[in-house]
Amino acid sequence: MKTLAVVALAAAVTTLSAPASAQFAKPEDAIKYRQSALFVMGQHFGRLGAMANGRIPFDAKAAQENADIVAEMAKLPWAGFGAGTDKGAPTKALPEIWTQQAKFKEHSDKLEADTVKLAAAAKTGNLDNLKTAFGATANSCKACHDNYRAK
Amino acid sequence: MKTLAVVALAAAVTTLSAPASAQFAKPEDAIKYRQSALFVMGQHFGRLGAMANGRIPFDAKAAQENADIVAEMAKLPWAGFGAGTDKGAPTKALPEIWTQQAKFKEHSDKLEADTVKLAAAAKTGNLDNLKTAFGATANSCKACHDNYRAK
Repeated sequence: MKTLAVVALAAAVTTLSAPASAQFAKPEDAIKYRQSALFVMGQHFGRLGAMANGRIPFDAKAAQENADIVAEMAKLPWAGFGAGTDKGAPTKALPEIWTQQAKFKEHSDKLEADTVKLAAAAKTGNLDNLKTAFGATANSCKACHDNYRAK
Repeated sequence: MKTLAVVALAAAVTTLSAPASAQFAKPEDAIKYRQSALFVMGQHFGRLGAMANGRIPFDAKAAQENADIVAEMAKLPWAGFGAGTDKGAPTKALPEIWTQQAKFKEHSDKLEADTVKLAAAAKTGNLDNLKTAFGATANSCKACHDNYRAK
């Protein structure tokens, strides 16, 4: 069953990691989209953090559910940072996102990779594994925010 | 490969359909969460609608990607309708959501089931299948909005 689950996860990740052919009617839709996807991801990530930091008891099943959702959500926001979406609605996105696109993509790719590892770590049911993967992922969030999000 | 993909999808759906142990720090977080999840879902659903209605050319790969995301997103919003989240931030959610919880759950369960069928239809690569499944899902969206969302 464990093997099947890993195969299934890998297949699902492969399926969903392709570009989602994002097309937005207006820049404000793209901005709202990326903010929404990041907010949903953040809520589930925060629950993992509460377990990793001991604020709530470790619940292996809940950790796995939340980490799976984080890994799915982590693929989505980037489509909302297309050309012309630097303004059109209130946003903390800095201009460097568009002037340093390759570097920004390195950050988002790293986050996606980290969240795949996070989901795998959660699946082990071991709190120490979760803590390690959570810390690595949190660092990726922070690195990107430090560089590309207004204070 | 087709069989593997179906097995993978079924496994992924099973994994993620369990309750996500939702806990929100404040009612406004729950409200923002459900609105965010519904908005992300709506953007991807809208792209399927554009294909189903002939406003953009049918792209089987994009349809499948969008439908997979719709099916994942359709599981999430409901955790944000917990007790005490009828106010705390601007919301169109009507009081009936909390006074008719079983009926509201019937609606959300139906939508989830419809989106699983939608993803399966998209996977066939056949536009007519997509149109049928899109229409059924759109009806479920509308039925719930008519009953539980302020105009």
